[in-house]
Amino acid sequence: MPRYTPEDSLQSPRFTGPSTFARLPWVKDLDKVDVAIIGVPFDTGVTYRVGGRFGPNAVRAASVMLRPYNPNLDVSPFEVLSCIDHGDVAIVPGYTERSYRRIEAAVAPLVDAGVIPILIGGDHACTLPHLRATRARGPVAVIDFDSHTDAWDSYFDERYNHGTWMRRAIEEGLVDTAHSIEVGLRGSVYGPEDWTRLRSELSLEYLTTEQVLAMGSDAVAAAIRARVGDRPAFVSFDIDVVDPAFAPGTGTPEPGGLTAHDALAVVRALRGIDFLGFDVVEVIPAYDPAAQTATLAANLAYEMLSLAALRRLGR
Amino acid sequence: MPRYTPEDSLQSPRFTGPSTFARLPWVKDLDKVDVAIIGVPFDTGVTYRVGGRFGPNAVRAASVMLRPYNPNLDVSPFEVLSCIDHGDVAIVPGYTERSYRRIEAAVAPLVDAGVIPILIGGDHACTLPHLRATRARGPVAVIDFDSHTDAWDSYFDERYNHGTWMRRAIEEGLVDTAHSIEVGLRGSVYGPEDWTRLRSELSLEYLTTEQVLAMGSDAVAAAIRARVGDRPAFVSFDIDVVDPAFAPGTGTPEPGGLTAHDALAVVRALRGIDFLGFDVVEVIPAYDPAAQTATLAANLAYEMLSLAALRRLGR
Amino acid sequence: MPRYTPEDSLQSPRFTGPSTFARLPWVKDLDKVDVAIIGVPFDTGVTYRVGGRFGPNAVRAASVMLRPYNPNLDVSPFEVLSCIDHGDVAIVPGYTERSYRRIEAAVAPLVDAGVIPILIGGDHACTLPHLRATRARGPVAVIDFDSHTDAWDSYFDERYNHGTWMRRAIEEGLVDTAHSIEVGLRGSVYGPEDWTRLRSELSLEYLTTEQVLAMGSDAVAAAIRARVGDRPAFVSFDIDVVDPAFAPGTGTPEPGGLTAHDALAVVRALRGIDFLGFDVVEVIPAYDPAAQTATLAANLAYEMLSLAALRRLGR
Amino acid sequence: MPRYTPEDSLQSPRFTGPSTFARLPWVKDLDKVDVAIIGVPFDTGVTYRVGGRFGPNAVRAASVMLRPYNPNLDVSPFEVLSCIDHGDVAIVPGYTERSYRRIEAAVAPLVDAGVIPILIGGDHACTLPHLRATRARGPVAVIDFDSHTDAWDSYFDERYNHGTWMRRAIEEGLVDTAHSIEVGLRGSVYGPEDWTRLRSELSLEYLTTEQVLAMGSDAVAAAIRARVGDRPAFVSFDIDVVDPAFAPGTGTPEPGGLTAHDALAVVRALRGIDFLGFDVVEVIPAYDPAAQTATLAANLAYEMLSLAALRRLGR
Amino acid sequence: MPRYTPEDSLQSPRFTGPSTFARLPWVKDLDKVDVAIIGVPFDTGVTYRVGGRFGPNAVRAASVMLRPYNPNLDVSPFEVLSCIDHGDVAIVPGYTERSYRRIEAAVAPLVDAGVIPILIGGDHACTLPHLRATRARGPVAVIDFDSHTDAWDSYFDERYNHGTWMRRAIEEGLVDTAHSIEVGLRGSVYGPEDWTRLRSELSLEYLTTEQVLAMGSDAVAAAIRARVGDRPAFVSFDIDVVDPAFAPGTGTPEPGGLTAHDALAVVRALRGIDFLGFDVVEVIPAYDPAAQTATLAANLAYEMLSLAALRRLGR
Amino acid sequence: MPRYTPEDSLQSPRFTGPSTFARLPWVKDLDKVDVAIIGVPFDTGVTYRVGGRFGPNAVRAASVMLRPYNPNLDVSPFEVLSCIDHGDVAIVPGYTERSYRRIEAAVAPLVDAGVIPILIGGDHACTLPHLRATRARGPVAVIDFDSHTDAWDSYFDERYNHGTWMRRAIEEGLVDTAHSIEVGLRGSVYGPEDWTRLRSELSLEYLTTEQVLAMGSDAVAAAIRARVGDRPAFVSFDIDVVDPAFAPGTGTPEPGGLTAHDALAVVRALRGIDFLGFDVVEVIPAYDPAAQTATLAANLAYEMLSLAALRRLGR
Repeated sequence: MPRYTPEDSLQSPRFTGPSTFARLPWVKDLDKVDVAIIGVPFDTGVTYRVGGRFGPNAVRAASVMLRPYNPNLDVSPFEVLSCIDHGDVAIVPGYTERSYRRIEAAVAPLVDAGVIPILIGGDHACTLPHLRATRARGPVAVIDFDSHTDAWDSYFDERYNHGTWMRRAIEEGLVDTAHSIEVGLRGSVYGPEDWTRLRSELSLEYLTTEQVLAMGSDAVAAAIRARVGDRPAFVSFDIDVVDPAFAPGTGTPEPGGLTAHDALAVVRALRGIDFLGFDVVEVIPAYDPAAQTATLAANLAYEMLSLAALRRLGR
Repeated sequence: MPRYTPEDSLQSPRFTGPSTFARLPWVKDLDKVDVAIIGVPFDTGVTYRVGGRFGPNAVRAASVMLRPYNPNLDVSPFEVLSCIDHGDVAIVPGYTERSYRRIEAAVAPLVDAGVIPILIGGDHACTLPHLRATRARGPVAVIDFDSHTDAWDSYFDERYNHGTWMRRAIEEGLVDTAHSIEVGLRGSVYGPEDWTRLRSELSLEYLTTEQVLAMGSDAVAAAIRARVGDRPAFVSFDIDVVDPAFAPGTGTPEPGGLTAHDALAVVRALRGIDFLGFDVVEVIPAYDPAAQTATLAANLAYEMLSLAALRRLGR
Repeated sequence: MPRYTPEDSLQSPRFTGPSTFARLPWVKDLDKVDVAIIGVPFDTGVTYRVGGRFGPNAVRAASVMLRPYNPNLDVSPFEVLSCIDHGDVAIVPGYTERSYRRIEAAVAPLVDAGVIPILIGGDHACTLPHLRATRARGPVAVIDFDSHTDAWDSYFDERYNHGTWMRRAIEEGLVDTAHSIEVGLRGSVYGPEDWTRLRSELSLEYLTTEQVLAMGSDAVAAAIRARVGDRPAFVSFDIDVVDPAFAPGTGTPEPGGLTAHDALAVVRALRGIDFLGFDVVEVIPAYDPAAQTATLAANLAYEMLSLAALRRLGR
Repeated sequence: MPRYTPEDSLQSPRFTGPSTFARLPWVKDLDKVDVAIIGVPFDTGVTYRVGGRFGPNAVRAASVMLRPYNPNLDVSPFEVLSCIDHGDVAIVPGYTERSYRRIEAAVAPLVDAGVIPILIGGDHACTLPHLRATRARGPVAVIDFDSHTDAWDSYFDERYNHGTWMRRAIEEGLVDTAHSIEVGLRGSVYGPEDWTRLRSELSLEYLTTEQVLAMGSDAVAAAIRARVGDRPAFVSFDIDVVDPAFAPGTGTPEPGGLTAHDALAVVRALRGIDFLGFDVVEVIPAYDPAAQTATLAANLAYEMLSLAALRRLGR
Repeated sequence: MPRYTPEDSLQSPRFTGPSTFARLPWVKDLDKVDVAIIGVPFDTGVTYRVGGRFGPNAVRAASVMLRPYNPNLDVSPFEVLSCIDHGDVAIVPGYTERSYRRIEAAVAPLVDAGVIPILIGGDHACTLPHLRATRARGPVAVIDFDSHTDAWDSYFDERYNHGTWMRRAIEEGLVDTAHSIEVGLRGSVYGPEDWTRLRSELSLEYLTTEQVLAMGSDAVAAAIRARVGDRPAFVSFDIDVVDPAFAPGTGTPEPGGLTAHDALAVVRALRGIDFLGFDVVEVIPAYDPAAQTATLAANLAYEMLSLAALRRLGR
Repeated sequence: MPRYTPEDSLQSPRFTGPSTFARLPWVKDLDKVDVAIIGVPFDTGVTYRVGGRFGPNAVRAASVMLRPYNPNLDVSPFEVLSCIDHGDVAIVPGYTERSYRRIEAAVAPLVDAGVIPILIGGDHACTLPHLRATRARGPVAVIDFDSHTDAWDSYFDERYNHGTWMRRAIEEGLVDTAHSIEVGLRGSVYGPEDWTRLRSELSLEYLTTEQVLAMGSDAVAAAIRARVGDRPAFVSFDIDVVDPAFAPGTGTPEPGGLTAHDALAVVRALRGIDFLGFDVVEVIPAYDPAAQTATLAANLAYEMLSLAALRRLGR
């Protein structure tokens, strides 16, 4: 068995606290660790609703419901991988660039040590330092599930926030754009070019929500796998790609989105890709009275963990 | 550019207040105005949950997320049409008939001036004075998205409330029944004739939710367009046609309804119709903790605005 | 007309209280009664969120929206069957086995008298005494809508709770396993055998949520009817088989589930089966701010009532 | 023992439903009844927040916590008086004057039969028909706990709503103004005369919240008793006299009010007065997430019940 | 009458929108304006809960309950002063120093024009630019109602946030410390010197919550007036000085605080002081389900307005 | 410095997770530990609202606001005592007696090791095993802050629940009744003897809420200290002794109680007593939307910690 495994919920109740992700041990050192869940309680980058700083703990609280076997992917990830809850990055609230440095400084050692990080946001602005932390691995294929492009140049003449991180990451050479894709774009935008220039200007592929719903989960996953190929990849999952009915607790909700089932099915179907990191972002507990958003985020992270386990097993 | 346009959310944050619909100017006079959003904070007509008086402001608050370009319809409505937030009608709480007169008095001048009103309710009882305000244009084709017929004769022996407005409107000669249709009927009713007499007695066509879900959005829209033809039309959108998962904040929820995506898709597909007015009703913020109902209503109003813009462009 | 019928909501408003199920009379004696709705406010059997003790009253409050005619099944159940709200079982909070005895003692006389009980939970642990109350009728075909098998052997080394009732019921000879089926399994489990041993060890059939969504409601209902045949049957509906978007107010939510429409459609399609009882369980109002879960549960109970009415009519 | 008494919460749990006031029997006939609790789910009379129609059932739900002995007044009211939950008046939502007639028609027979009604609102507009129902007893001394005078002439040029009932009642000769008093006035008003004309024009005495807090509960009660003397009296308790911290679930909250303890202490100290009726109004559950307002209202009604019991005992 | 006055709530209902402070006109130019209410939706400066960006609109929504006459101070402020809602400052979310410049740039012209600003936060960090905007008037006496000193040197090694503004303001020479005072300190702190160094190091006077409660409102106000003397003064009211029961919707709640009545009484008792500005900060609507915090803040602002009116009248 | 101290919130933000009590280390072994905070997520013992199983984590989440110095008691407890968060007892939900054994087994080793436990409930039924764990120290003086006596003999004929623990503890010889006291009794009870038999039958002293409010905090604390003398003592603090305005998130709220300030003041004034343990119970987060109850509970625990520190210092 791996060094670290979750507590057994058939022996101690799930609500026995403090809550860690999936009831895993809370561990700071990285010895004999395969996957580390890290909270990134950063929300200074938002343009509308705020409160993602409480996202990591809300996802932890919801994740205690996770059990050891994933029947959809036929894998018991905690038997395959030694997983830990690595705690939170001590970001600096109100100071984006210092927070970015702290996030990068916290995540890079994991990537360097071959530990796969699963980061729980926090707002989407923190995906930029997540990607900076993978810089040593060269540009990565980014799979961004999102209703927004996050590729605007600036908001309020500022270049670092949750609407611009993708453009910044590309500018910084962190994204292997030829193998990257945004999935789930929808909602009103600033102009017709907001989507089209992803391709024309940034060489980034995308699928709209309309396309995702028309194609179905399997075809979408196939398109993503085709796009990514065998490149090392990073999944960023903005919970707002899902319809607000399934994910009310988020900052910039766009009605008319994917169901939770759609989202889980597409993520599950990404097996085979060489992932070096994941994140799930934009959960805001203050707008999530029944914790359904946090519960979905926890399940998405569990599917990511399962994908990593399958990859380790060569399946 | 049109006389009136929204504030630029890339320069001032969306939450900068007071909130008007889509951050449009709050304007009372109608000079150089094409579309006016009007709040109708009337909720005296309800038979169960109440609180739609706070609906207009909740929809305004949610609508600040709207951006200028509609990618689904390929139009920037605020570049085509001069739009304003015209404020609220000063209805008389607790007094239906006086409120009706105030609503009609507020809306009729807009219709007369060729301004397209988009009314934000308030409960569905206020659609009767909305239609009275179009009287000068002759009977109009009414497209009513609703889980209920609203064609009962009375409740508690009273003739004016949110369950009877359609019958009253037909009796008053306001509805071109041969070109009108109710879309989305479902839920338990008082008897088998509640639906069938729409056709037999009122000459009104209808589609049930079961039919809508079986046909799909495009076929439903085609059926509506065929029914309406080239008559001047009015869309009334009762948010309860959508499933409570997507629209919990409403007064008489009926489980088993349309998704938000279904709703948006059908409305979008109504391009080509000659609309002289719209309303979105039955949003109750007290039951909408994450504002998802108000957000959906704001998006539906934005689609309506976009349809008006396309019509203006002859597309 | 039957002896007992609901109040007329066209004469007295729906919110006129105290609230009983569907505004039926609150009656203790069973003379001239066909169907009895019974609350079972038991929640000692849960392993995570708790509060189902307030479920029966929340479902009652939501059920006042039900009207007398079911258009999907073309039946007015209250004209066919004399229905009552029989009140709640006085369970013993914190004491499972004494509560079980009280539940069985309350329900068995109904079954013996040929009254069909529709039990409103409470947590799923109470389905065991529900089934004990039918013991005189021999093992029954159980149709369990649920995202969980509830067939684990124990939790915390205890044998009676909401995750073990099905196994206990089979061990006690209450279930006609050859004609029983679990519908909607999904979510992470403890091991690969959690599902497979239902068949191999317990002779119980099952359909996963993935299968339900792939097959569609009609095919699922056909499979259930084929399984049950003409045996006397009991439906247990755990609201968590529905996605948390549609049923947030529950104790162990599993994202990626059925829609409310799916759930209602499958239940409706069970016409023809010889039902001797029903339950709807696991509604927790404290996590249901807009009462959408309770509203769905009330509608599911109404469909069950309608199935009973159709059976009485021989349709 | 009296004919009707509450269920024993040491035998059946308090949450066993349906909920009636204090778990009393729900009884329509008045034989051998001393006190009847009646719900008045009327909220058409409000000028701001709405939703008091759900007040009676919320107070019932909270009242199940009440136990049989009142230690502050040293009385077991249910041993002294036969008390029932008489259900709700079937008011006509949206129609004030018809609702008034129904309320008066429901309450007058109780007063005539010597049954003391304790009415649970609903908004304060319903106190007018409460008083009309006592007309046969001549003008009564009214003790109105309220932060507002409710003696304005009209709102929106309408004469019947929750801000005008006191003036109407006086005009109709229902109030023995020389022995009546308003207690707890505070908050901004329309002009300096809003309070002073109570005395100068209406001959009504009043104490402001500032006076109440300065005097203390005993002195306030003494002043009230002195004012009322031995006249038959009616207490109307608008929950907004209490600070919003203690009663958030109300329609026109005014910060800076009485504590719950102050309120209970003053009501308790009214022993000796000859009460022929009581009401507690303006509870709106939609703004009462922890039910603290409803719980306070239930306790106030219990103190009123206890006062009636003491009077019966001649104490 | 003044140029600008509120809408008449006896004619149009209070909930008629869009909501401005006290239903005042929304006006940008400053001609014939005495008092301007300005929203400052800045919340980047917080160290724990966040969401004050929605504070100004929540206070506006609650403020529609305010009526024209203040009986405690015997003044009708809107008859004395021409008051407007000046809208919000377009702060830059996530960027403190740019936001500070925008706030100062928005407020300074008012101060220069002799208009008294009443600023509605937003978090307490924005009081620094509020004071910078008064720089032309020389150092001002600051009366800071607060449970925290906000005089720490830094948080996370950053100098600008809601816990350091007072120290910064003193360092920048904006505060006439000899005439300034902090009122209401309580709660756990970092060390014994946190409070004492206010006097020893910053020459700032203070009263703890324990002292305030022991002294009573009048004595506290007298102490403040004695401290301030005839200097031009600025009141900053951090809503967290009030107990969380009265103000749950705030970011760093400290139990054991003032009541709403205490707070209102002390503010009212400050008549006679020469105020050149006010703010009310730290209202977070996401934690204020019944809007009681926003309602209290609106009432505090109304008292401030009334103090300004009395000063104008020389009373 | 002590071995274990909290994280520094001036360096890492308070919301950096996972949350432990006061950001202390989460430690299982007891070497060099003076005080251990232990969660007891047991809620099987309640008779009305349920959900205290989430109490410990809610109090942890709120407790991150605590800072190192207590100005009221002039002590920095974490400099004096080595404190840890010892995690939660793995109680057995639904099984009271097994849970009791687990609680006792978890707590007794601490008491034996001279570590002072501060237990965070959970419902009040768990105070019985808390006291059993002190058995080796002989009967202890119990100071029970509570609105209820919790000295009933049984509920539903069951002897172990949150309304009977005090009687059981006395019967088991765990309580030094001659030096014990209940503080804060109020609310309706079952009969006049419910309170009086505390003295006559159980030799237990008590103060009612009415007495507490009349005496004031200092006199109450003096009475408690006089009662306890120099015996080893245990404080049990049921949060429902505080008024629901200050502690809405509890199971059996009784209006008319202490303020948060009263509660904190009395606890603080208990310096000098020889405490061997503490608990704070009956926090239910599902009814605590702004976390004010959990925040108060965290502050009460901090005062208890400070009392232990003062005792260690001989002050």
